Amino acid sequence: MSEVLIVGSVAYDGLKTPYGSADRVLGGAATYSSLAASLFAPVKMVGVVGDDFKDSDMALVKRHGINTDLVTKEKGKTFYWKGYYENDMAVAHTVKIDLGVFERFDPHITGRSRNVPFVFLAAIHPDLQMNVLKQMVKPKFVVLDTRDLWINITKPALMKVLKKTDLVVVNDQEIRLLTGEMHLMKGARALQKLGPKTVIVKKGEHGAMLFGQGWTFLSPAVPLDYVVDPTGAGDTFAGAFIGYVARAGKLTPEILKQAVIAGNLVASFTVQGLGTKSIAALNKAKLKKRAVDYHKFASIPKVTI
Amino acid sequence: MSEVLIVGSVAYDGLKTPYGSADRVLGGAATYSSLAASLFAPVKMVGVVGDDFKDSDMALVKRHGINTDLVTKEKGKTFYWKGYYENDMAVAHTVKIDLGVFERFDPHITGRSRNVPFVFLAAIHPDLQMNVLKQMVKPKFVVLDTRDLWINITKPALMKVLKKTDLVVVNDQEIRLLTGEMHLMKGARALQKLGPKTVIVKKGEHGAMLFGQGWTFLSPAVPLDYVVDPTGAGDTFAGAFIGYVARAGKLTPEILKQAVIAGNLVASFTVQGLGTKSIAALNKAKLKKRAVDYHKFASIPKVTI
Repeated sequence: MSEVLIVGSVAYDGLKTPYGSADRVLGGAATYSSLAASLFAPVKMVGVVGDDFKDSDMALVKRHGINTDLVTKEKGKTFYWKGYYENDMAVAHTVKIDLGVFERFDPHITGRSRNVPFVFLAAIHPDLQMNVLKQMVKPKFVVLDTRDLWINITKPALMKVLKKTDLVVVNDQEIRLLTGEMHLMKGARALQKLGPKTVIVKKGEHGAMLFGQGWTFLSPAVPLDYVVDPTGAGDTFAGAFIGYVARAGKLTPEILKQAVIAGNLVASFTVQGLGTKSIAALNKAKLKKRAVDYHKFASIPKVTI
Repeated sequence: MSEVLIVGSVAYDGLKTPYGSADRVLGGAATYSSLAASLFAPVKMVGVVGDDFKDSDMALVKRHGINTDLVTKEKGKTFYWKGYYENDMAVAHTVKIDLGVFERFDPHITGRSRNVPFVFLAAIHPDLQMNVLKQMVKPKFVVLDTRDLWINITKPALMKVLKKTDLVVVNDQEIRLLTGEMHLMKGARALQKLGPKTVIVKKGEHGAMLFGQGWTFLSPAVPLDYVVDPTGAGDTFAGAFIGYVARAGKLTPEILKQAVIAGNLVASFTVQGLGTKSIAALNKAKLKKRAVDYHKFASIPKVTI
């Protein structure tokens, strides 16, 4: 079993969905993905919080076995995002962003942390992603997330990081912005030529598609009776994915496929609670049960032609 | 192996998509679904054509082993539909509809045809669907298709047919119109209470979902490098589905699941040619090859939690 290093935002979120609302709840890409990855492998989290960050929230993260030595506390406010969702919960509407101490985030990877073999770069400025990568000593597997904002305003920097990435996680809009291809499968193949040998396209309620070298795989999303809050679903997916791969310690197509399923399974819990509430309360027993149900739902019988 | 009786439109279509166009090509729901079903089981097709219907088109249908004794030829024109698709090929834009002889379509099921056990009622007026059903002698399995038009203007008649239906095939918009439920899974369960024990929700490029009694199954769509014309995809799916079930002659969850996959596989050929061109040229060898690829793409490995 190998360790995972995760770099990204740690935040307080103000959330409103048709099914609930809460203010200043623990969030951020690094938080969601670390909680998810910690289900499978030891995690080192890299981030910054303000002096308003609650001890109880830090304790929650640590309780999941996540190493927070590289989460620094700075004078100022923790990154704050306020947003809401309407009936179409695929679209987040931002009301307010206060970067706080995150504006001066300058991650320093020190000591043995530089040797962690599995690295997840959550969707932060590509210069920061590159900064982290340069501090790592021969990482075995680098997973990159990004978002439309960075593609639009920092594409050249992002292209440089992509070249040093083993796997990139995108949605259909991002793949179009990155490659100019309207057709998802052609877009994924175009993206593979920009650096990452493997591409994952997140399709929300329709699951996730994995593009390897000459092969493709689809894991449908877990069918859910209800969804409370989609915040953090993508980060959870990526965190569970890299955690699963790190635990296996190898990069075979079979392990990558299983890791995509694990990502879908864990993310299906995140969206059933407000903020990090549901993912923080997740355990192996609940996850195992859902995995059994999922296999009944998605297993493909052999057809006789 | 049991026979399938299929009732629906036989048409000439004027088609235009970003990838090709043709006028007065063989089409219609009964045509697509009969060609698809004939890959698996003997088919009796019920429909009406005008005196402009070409002998070569009738010969094409017969060449697939489809019994056309109940396809009557009337004085007048064959049903004509003209439409086009833009880049979003999920939406068909109608330019012209000329019902022709289809306006007076009055299907008579005679002799041994009344004892055919598997019945597919394509999306025609629910009064016509009921008319056919009343002529059948204890059918074993009735599959119903419909469309937004009939839900909007003939809902009470449609509700009566639904009560006598074993399985209904809908898309997400139709399920909302029929049940008032926005949530697809809740909508499917509401629909099961209106008659059909089994519901299939077609999700286009995202595959098809099968709702049984207490179980759910998803078959992802076949990933395609290119699509030429989506016309007839739904009819093809339904035809291949009922053909597969009729060949098996039993209604177990396992057979129904396999039949959904068969529906997706066969429909994936239809959309790669203009009109019925590709489905008419399909054979078992091509289908087998695609089935092998599909299993590589969609087979779900066991995850270790």
